[in-house]
Amino acid sequence: MSTPGNAKIRAEEIVARCKRLASFSEDPGSTRRTFLSPPMRDCHQEITKWLTAVGADVTVDAAGNLRGLYAAAQSTAPRLLLGSHLDTVPNAGAYDGVLGVVVAVALLEALEGRRLPFGIEVVGFSEEEGVRFGTPFIGSRALAGRLDEELLNRQDANGISIRAAIESFGLNPAEILRAALRDDTLAYLEFHIEQGPVLESLGRRLGVVEAIVGQTRMEFVFLGHANHAGTTPMHLRHDAIAAAADWIVAVERAAHSHPGLVATVGQIEAKPGAINVIPGEARVTLDLRHKSDDVCTGVTELLVRLAEEIAGRRGLSLRRSVLLSQRAVAMDPFLVDQIEEAIRSVGCEPHRMVSGAGHDAMILAEKVPAAMIFLRTPGGISHDPAESVEIEDVAKALECGLHLLDQLASFSELQKRMCRA
Amino acid sequence: MSTPGNAKIRAEEIVARCKRLASFSEDPGSTRRTFLSPPMRDCHQEITKWLTAVGADVTVDAAGNLRGLYAAAQSTAPRLLLGSHLDTVPNAGAYDGVLGVVVAVALLEALEGRRLPFGIEVVGFSEEEGVRFGTPFIGSRALAGRLDEELLNRQDANGISIRAAIESFGLNPAEILRAALRDDTLAYLEFHIEQGPVLESLGRRLGVVEAIVGQTRMEFVFLGHANHAGTTPMHLRHDAIAAAADWIVAVERAAHSHPGLVATVGQIEAKPGAINVIPGEARVTLDLRHKSDDVCTGVTELLVRLAEEIAGRRGLSLRRSVLLSQRAVAMDPFLVDQIEEAIRSVGCEPHRMVSGAGHDAMILAEKVPAAMIFLRTPGGISHDPAESVEIEDVAKALECGLHLLDQLASFSELQKRMCRA
Repeated sequence: MSTPGNAKIRAEEIVARCKRLASFSEDPGSTRRTFLSPPMRDCHQEITKWLTAVGADVTVDAAGNLRGLYAAAQSTAPRLLLGSHLDTVPNAGAYDGVLGVVVAVALLEALEGRRLPFGIEVVGFSEEEGVRFGTPFIGSRALAGRLDEELLNRQDANGISIRAAIESFGLNPAEILRAALRDDTLAYLEFHIEQGPVLESLGRRLGVVEAIVGQTRMEFVFLGHANHAGTTPMHLRHDAIAAAADWIVAVERAAHSHPGLVATVGQIEAKPGAINVIPGEARVTLDLRHKSDDVCTGVTELLVRLAEEIAGRRGLSLRRSVLLSQRAVAMDPFLVDQIEEAIRSVGCEPHRMVSGAGHDAMILAEKVPAAMIFLRTPGGISHDPAESVEIEDVAKALECGLHLLDQLASFSELQKRMCRA
Repeated sequence: MSTPGNAKIRAEEIVARCKRLASFSEDPGSTRRTFLSPPMRDCHQEITKWLTAVGADVTVDAAGNLRGLYAAAQSTAPRLLLGSHLDTVPNAGAYDGVLGVVVAVALLEALEGRRLPFGIEVVGFSEEEGVRFGTPFIGSRALAGRLDEELLNRQDANGISIRAAIESFGLNPAEILRAALRDDTLAYLEFHIEQGPVLESLGRRLGVVEAIVGQTRMEFVFLGHANHAGTTPMHLRHDAIAAAADWIVAVERAAHSHPGLVATVGQIEAKPGAINVIPGEARVTLDLRHKSDDVCTGVTELLVRLAEEIAGRRGLSLRRSVLLSQRAVAMDPFLVDQIEEAIRSVGCEPHRMVSGAGHDAMILAEKVPAAMIFLRTPGGISHDPAESVEIEDVAKALECGLHLLDQLASFSELQKRMCRA
């Protein structure tokens, strides 16, 4: 097994590889690699080199996911999935998604030929960000058996469907079903940067995700009357921005009074939008997330009620619509415990946390036990070229991953599952 | 003098004339008549017909103001000015400005040839709205002797200066100084629609303006940090929109706690403006008005302090700038009393009020005693094709105007002024 010194060297190699993959981009000078875009092929070729070097068997499935199987000690053994996504947002950093795949490859390398009682399949998902087709998780949905006709017909801004994109990448959409998880899949594990400030603020290197939040997204439109800012006394106004401001203050208050809840008003628009005209219309959005669906629902209902009260009290009307309603997803408690133990084994204090963002693990969790390990993200900065990782954190993540593989290999509960498989 | 029955007929004619003038427009199907645009010439011709019919001597001064002098009983007598503006905003109604000129013409007609101890000069100002050159009161500034070189060189969106616009209308900018008020000007009176809901809400037809508010316009930019809406806990946010909302609530509260104050946030903008990103920047505007400059200054200072406190408490910074700072203008107390008396004389209950909008009377007040009579504005709707007046209100305004002329003719204080003149 890798020594701490080795881990540091491997961590430096991981960072170098992430930076190399970031150079495969649709945009010159910045990183952008959307679903099955030409640079994705370069990315696949590069990772394939590393995987074949450790004896893994590499394929690209019909959904464009790169899959490299490192065989088990026995050919009939089940397999553990390790992975993350290879697509990026525009003007991306080098680590979001990619790091999880590169760490998985490095774990195979660190095994130095050693075989485990389960195979390890490294998965580089083709799509997680939702940039090209406005819908995320195309890659992991194929593994969950949910990449259906409707989704395949979805078109990008140029009118190219997912199906057509798959075909022009040289893949066969008719084989999508063969991309689905095999019955002998034990679990899915994903290393990922936190993309937030929590671990850094606590001074911790690694976190274990116990749940991925549920999300509600809504739009509220307060409808009052536009009027002259000089000639309309305060008591005769129906000011849409004043109503919206009242409500935004209530949103923040509600979020603060429910631990773990985050609520955001990201968009606001006032009409007519002249300095000397009282706004007659104000459109605001709400993004609300919590690990408990009950809390999500309860607070959303409270905020709808408050918006109606505020509008009613001010003689305004309210229009509202739900844009997204996504349930929370729990990670597998057994895996979460194992990850905590592995983090402690490498001398770190784990932080059990909730992921505020969606991840492929959320999709895989529908089918197999799934869990995530978060790496501290300096400044919480992500989706930005300034995205970074600490070498020491990557080294600890790698060591932790090796510990985890050994734990899983030896754990009797898992053995039983393997017997059933 | 006109009987009430006559007044009603004259009022109907006034409304018909306003509608006719509204048809002289730069835009087909809606009213838009900016400074010295071609339809302004048609407007001048039409009003000139009415003025010459009552024996007034009509000229257009070098600033494009239409001026019609109805001579006094004696040729050495001083003159009283009656007027308002003839330009409009885009998509205008038929009464803003125009009504004051048409009522002035109707007053001359209602005198039925009778001569007063003062001449009456009807003025149709060429520009009040500030649409074409982004600066208002071009016409009345010429009468106040303030249409200087700098202003004459100001250009519209097509690079045409005020000077060039004057020349291409066939006027001579070198004669601007001759447009200035003569020393023997007694006073300036302006009939105008209220453009607000106050008279209607009180059930009064006519109001007398005792002051035109002072105005402060400012821009505030709250600068925080844009962050992921899912991964950034509430306590680690520097949310610019939450700060702005806090402040908007404070703006409204401050306005309510200072009688007569109006404060408006008309523009708001959040960046980056994505539903799932905490806004890092929020720009808001403030429009604050009161008849007392001390109150304007005091509340503005309070709101600046509150913005700084809110930003400071939330770890944000604040950028702010003053866009406009205009002092309040008192109307002439003697004229205000006389107008109140005239309104009562025609069986109406006057409402003494503050104008929340700027008017030509504000500019003229620098030089001569000035005052305004407001007509109730249905629904408070103005700067809109739905702008309207009640025939009865116009009839009462006309009667009130005639009473006022008689009061002024007989009043001893005024006689003294006339002797001095």
